[in-house]
Amino acid sequence: MCIEHKKEDIMKLVPLGDRVVIKQLVAEETTKSGIVLPGQAKEKPQQAEVIAVGPGGVIDGKEVTMQVKPGDKIIYSKYAGTEVKLEDEEYIIVKQGDILAVIE
Amino acid sequence: MCIEHKKEDIMKLVPLGDRVVIKQLVAEETTKSGIVLPGQAKEKPQQAEVIAVGPGGVIDGKEVTMQVKPGDKIIYSKYAGTEVKLEDEEYIIVKQGDILAVIE
Amino acid sequence: MCIEHKKEDIMKLVPLGDRVVIKQLVAEETTKSGIVLPGQAKEKPQQAEVIAVGPGGVIDGKEVTMQVKPGDKIIYSKYAGTEVKLEDEEYIIVKQGDILAVIE
Amino acid sequence: MCIEHKKEDIMKLVPLGDRVVIKQLVAEETTKSGIVLPGQAKEKPQQAEVIAVGPGGVIDGKEVTMQVKPGDKIIYSKYAGTEVKLEDEEYIIVKQGDILAVIE
Amino acid sequence: MCIEHKKEDIMKLVPLGDRVVIKQLVAEETTKSGIVLPGQAKEKPQQAEVIAVGPGGVIDGKEVTMQVKPGDKIIYSKYAGTEVKLEDEEYIIVKQGDILAVIE
Amino acid sequence: MCIEHKKEDIMKLVPLGDRVVIKQLVAEETTKSGIVLPGQAKEKPQQAEVIAVGPGGVIDGKEVTMQVKPGDKIIYSKYAGTEVKLEDEEYIIVKQGDILAVIE
Amino acid sequence: MCIEHKKEDIMKLVPLGDRVVIKQLVAEETTKSGIVLPGQAKEKPQQAEVIAVGPGGVIDGKEVTMQVKPGDKIIYSKYAGTEVKLEDEEYIIVKQGDILAVIE
Repeated sequence: MCIEHKKEDIMKLVPLGDRVVIKQLVAEETTKSGIVLPGQAKEKPQQAEVIAVGPGGVIDGKEVTMQVKPGDKIIYSKYAGTEVKLEDEEYIIVKQGDILAVIE
Repeated sequence: MCIEHKKEDIMKLVPLGDRVVIKQLVAEETTKSGIVLPGQAKEKPQQAEVIAVGPGGVIDGKEVTMQVKPGDKIIYSKYAGTEVKLEDEEYIIVKQGDILAVIE
Repeated sequence: MCIEHKKEDIMKLVPLGDRVVIKQLVAEETTKSGIVLPGQAKEKPQQAEVIAVGPGGVIDGKEVTMQVKPGDKIIYSKYAGTEVKLEDEEYIIVKQGDILAVIE
Repeated sequence: MCIEHKKEDIMKLVPLGDRVVIKQLVAEETTKSGIVLPGQAKEKPQQAEVIAVGPGGVIDGKEVTMQVKPGDKIIYSKYAGTEVKLEDEEYIIVKQGDILAVIE
Repeated sequence: MCIEHKKEDIMKLVPLGDRVVIKQLVAEETTKSGIVLPGQAKEKPQQAEVIAVGPGGVIDGKEVTMQVKPGDKIIYSKYAGTEVKLEDEEYIIVKQGDILAVIE
Repeated sequence: MCIEHKKEDIMKLVPLGDRVVIKQLVAEETTKSGIVLPGQAKEKPQQAEVIAVGPGGVIDGKEVTMQVKPGDKIIYSKYAGTEVKLEDEEYIIVKQGDILAVIE
Repeated sequence: MCIEHKKEDIMKLVPLGDRVVIKQLVAEETTKSGIVLPGQAKEKPQQAEVIAVGPGGVIDGKEVTMQVKPGDKIIYSKYAGTEVKLEDEEYIIVKQGDILAVIE
C-alpha cells in the first residue's frame, strides 16, 4: 500500500515523561516454498524494540526513573499503548509501566 | 455554512493549569489529478501543533512543569481532549499528560 | 412560560470550595429577515461567563487557588457541571478544574 | 397514611464527619384559582435548607472544615445524598462536598 | 424455622479496624386490631443500633477515630455493609464511614 | 470424591503481605434422623478459621499490622478472596481488610 | 505445532519493577492405564514456579521489596498477569502483589 522510504531528514518521536516509543517485532515465518509471511496475521506478538525513551522525572506526582534504553528488546502489556504512524512507519507509545520485561 | 474571517481583534484561548491548546494537523493528500484532499475523511491523524500552553503549577495536588511550547508538533492520545470552536477555527484542549511525544 | 424579571432584592449563588458559577453564553444568530434565534437549538456552545467564584482553599486534601474571576469568558468541559435555576435564570456550577481555558 | 405530629421529645439527626442533614425546599406554586401545588410532581428542585452539620475533622485522611451552618439555603448535587425519614419528616444526608453553593 | 435461644456462653462479634457491628431496628407497626407487624415487609428501614465498635486506628493508611459507641441509634447508608448471622441473630457489619448520622 | 489424608510431609501455604489463609467453617446440621448434612448446599456461611497470617508490613505504600492470628474464628466479606486447593484441602486467601470481625 | 527445543544461547526474561516471571505448574495426572494427562484440560491450577524476579524499588511512587525468589512455588491470583511466549515456552508475568502465598 505504501513504499517504505527513509528520508534524509528523518522525523523523530521524542516521548514525554515516562513514555517509551517502541516498534513491534514482526515474527517472520518462512514457508517451505521460501515465502516470508509477516507475523501480523497471527496472534499479535508482544515483543518490541525500544526506539526512544522519555526523560522520566516526576510523573503524576511520582518520581519515575527510566529503566529501558533504545535497542532493548522488551515484552509489553497487550492492551497498552497508542499506535502512531510517522512517515509510513508504525510505532507504539507506551508508558514504561506497561513494559513487563526486557528480553536478554 | 460560514465564511472564514480573521478579525483584527482576534480572540485568544488561554488554557488553565496543565492544559494545552492544540490544532490538529491536516494531512493533505494530492491526488494524481492535483486535487488536494484534506485528511478529515480518512482516519483522524493524531498529530497536532501546540497553540497555547497553560502555566502548569500545582494541579490536583501535584506539581506539573510544562514540557511543550507553542509551535511544537506533537502526537496526542486519541480519545483525549475537548474540541472547541473559536471564530470558526477548531482547537482541541488537552492536558499535557495526554501529549505522548514531540515530533522533531 | 415565564416573564424574566430582576427583583430589587436579588438572590445570589455563593459557590463553595473550588466551584464556579457560570452562565452559558448564547450564540445569537440573526436570520436574513432579522429574527434573532437563540443558540439553544444548535449544538450547545461551551462558552460561558463566570458569575461567581468559590473561595478555593483545601479541597479534597489539596490546595486549590482560584484562577478565574467574575466576568471572565471561559470554555468549559462539555459534560461537567450541574445546571441550577434561580429566579428564572439558568446557571451552571462547575469545579474550576472543568474550566479548560479563558477567552481573551 | 400517617398523621404528622411533632412530639415534645423530638428526635434529632446528628450527622457524622463531613455530613450535612438538609431538608428539600418545596417550591410552592399557586394556581390562578388559588390552589397551592407542592413542587414534588415537577422536576425535583435542588434547593434545600441545612438542618444539621457534622463536626468535620479528618475525613478519609483529609482535613475538612465545615462551611455551611443550620439555616443556610443551599444548592446540592442532584444525585447525591441519602434520603432518610425520621418521625414522618423527610431529610437528605449529603456530604459537604455535594453542596454546590449557598443562596444568599 | 428456628427457635431463638440465648446461650449462656454467647458468641460475640469483635469488629476489626473501623468496622461497626449494628443491628437493624425493626419499626413495629400495630394495626387497629392490635396485631404487631414487623417492618421487614415494608421498605427496609435504615435505622440501626450499634452493637460493637472496632478499635479504629490506621485503616488503609489513614488514621480513623471511632465516633460511635454501643447503644447509639444510627442511620446508615442503604447499600452498605455485610449481613452476618450469628446464633440466629442477624447483624450488619459496616464501616464507620457508612454511618451517616446518630439519632439523639 | 476424595479421601482426606494428611501427609507426613504436609505442604504449607505461607501468605504474602497482608494476606491471610482461612478455611471456611462448615455449619453442620443434624437432621432428626441423625444424618449430618454439611452446610455447602445451603447459603454459604462466611465464617472461617484463620490458618496462616502474612507478615504485614508496607503494603501498597501503607503500613499494615496484622490483627488476626491462626486459630481465630472470623467473619469475612462475602465476595472477597481467592479459593485455592492444596492437597485436597480447600482454602481461601483473603486480605486482612476483608476480615470483618473476629468471633469470640 | 512446534517442536520444543532449548537453544544453547537461551533468551531470558528480565522483569521490570515489581514484576515476577512465573511458569504455571502442570498438575500431571496418571490414569490407571498409565497415560499421563497434563492438567490443562481441567480447571487451571494457580500454582506456579517463580522463574525471574524484578528488582523492586519505587513502583508507582511506593517502595516495593521483593519477597519471592526464583524457584519458589507460589499461588497467584487467577485473573492476574500477562501470558507471554518465548522460544516456545509459556510464561506468565505478574506483579508481586498478585502472588497470594508461597507453598512450603
